[in-house]
Amino acid sequence: VKAVRKLAGRSARLRTNRFVAEGPQAVREAVAAHVQRVGAGAEPLVHDLYLTPEAAQRHADIAAAARASGAAVHLATTEVLAAMADTVTPQGLLAVCSLVTVPLEQALAAGPRLVAILARVRDPGTAGTVLRAADAAGAGAVILTDASVDVHNAKCVRSTAGSLFHLPVASDVPLVDAVAAVRRAGLTVYAADGAGGTDLDDLMDAAAAGATGGLAGPVAWIFGNEAWGLPAADRALADAVVRVPVHGRAESLNLATAATVCLYAAARSSRRNQ
Amino acid sequence: VKAVRKLAGRSARLRTNRFVAEGPQAVREAVAAHVQRVGAGAEPLVHDLYLTPEAAQRHADIAAAARASGAAVHLATTEVLAAMADTVTPQGLLAVCSLVTVPLEQALAAGPRLVAILARVRDPGTAGTVLRAADAAGAGAVILTDASVDVHNAKCVRSTAGSLFHLPVASDVPLVDAVAAVRRAGLTVYAADGAGGTDLDDLMDAAAAGATGGLAGPVAWIFGNEAWGLPAADRALADAVVRVPVHGRAESLNLATAATVCLYAAARSSRRNQ
Repeated sequence: VKAVRKLAGRSARLRTNRFVAEGPQAVREAVAAHVQRVGAGAEPLVHDLYLTPEAAQRHADIAAAARASGAAVHLATTEVLAAMADTVTPQGLLAVCSLVTVPLEQALAAGPRLVAILARVRDPGTAGTVLRAADAAGAGAVILTDASVDVHNAKCVRSTAGSLFHLPVASDVPLVDAVAAVRRAGLTVYAADGAGGTDLDDLMDAAAAGATGGLAGPVAWIFGNEAWGLPAADRALADAVVRVPVHGRAESLNLATAATVCLYAAARSSRRNQ
Repeated sequence: VKAVRKLAGRSARLRTNRFVAEGPQAVREAVAAHVQRVGAGAEPLVHDLYLTPEAAQRHADIAAAARASGAAVHLATTEVLAAMADTVTPQGLLAVCSLVTVPLEQALAAGPRLVAILARVRDPGTAGTVLRAADAAGAGAVILTDASVDVHNAKCVRSTAGSLFHLPVASDVPLVDAVAAVRRAGLTVYAADGAGGTDLDDLMDAAAAGATGGLAGPVAWIFGNEAWGLPAADRALADAVVRVPVHGRAESLNLATAATVCLYAAARSSRRNQ
């Protein structure tokens, strides 16, 4: 119990190469990814699955799939589970998994046409929400720079709603390296910034009018810190600095909602030109 | 101090018709709205402004504007301010304001072309984020149904980042009444739901192709609870149930990001057809 609880800390996660996924949604996606990995002859993802007797009944399919693919499945009381978990109510199950992050080259190996780069995003809920939105928008990879939150943080994992197990994630990558790599892979690099010189609607108009490249082509978005955004030096790395238009009197959107609008604009623009 | 602190509770807010806006962003917008109201001969919005000596220097413009328009301005220590506030660090200032919600007819009086209806949204951060996104997308009103969070909740106020003071907000409105009112006002009513039969991209395509009405015309969006969405009876009130397309493997977006995509799709579609 103590060993699992310790995975709430980043250093313990790094030392043991383990983290905890809590609740039915995250655990279901973890087990599905695990089954796929083991089936492909790769290293296992899920090592231990803990369930309350009630959860073992309700989610018998998850427990069976985990057991069949070599994970250790344990029954535990609600109290023990709560003592292991970050949330007060982990809804009866949690999985101890290998860290999911991969090296940068591996994250880009499949030739993604949409990539989200999180530059010094520190808030776990925001990072997880952007990762989930990137998955929904069809992104093929997410990159977190150094000085960003650890995606294995419990709150971040929860906010991804399982998407952490859907697409490759690289972390601790210097922003310059991330930009160089996606550019080598042929992606246009846009930095999202409320004061950007390029309007997102204009990029969408160009794509809708049949322009190739730009938002119609493969795109990597850089999103900055949730409080202070992107410093000038970071913005300068992009091909263009793009603002989400503000039609009302709000000063801006928050990072997660702005990022979602940008990612969906790219998804829509490339869909229309394919 | 105790009287201000009590405004953290909904019953105290309702009894006194007062709530607290914390931090420079919210207080600045509250004072700006207050100055405008008083200038128009309407009831004051800000009654008391509390600042630390340091904040009074840094935000001398806010304090001066408040004082000049009849609000009582008080210096307070950091400790006193922290004792009054919901956040540990209210960043040196807070304002005691009149509740901002208005009756439904008044919220719609100016003939808004974009309206967000929050149906039983309970999470204050989510409700505030949607209100902020609605403001950014150019919405002219926000309606919260009965059984929704109180928009004067401290966390909700914080999440709106000042937008609570930018556009009319009606609350405690039965959903059927809200839908009837926006429909009488000529708005098309869309319910956002991950399993909706109409794809948001198709609505945008129709608007871009020059269709009138639909997403190109005046629109009210209904957004459901952050956990369980919209019950069938609520969805049935809408002209169409619309899904944000999911291109990747995510099951869905969270409510705040889905709502933002819907609101921005409406903003873009009506912009293109005006």
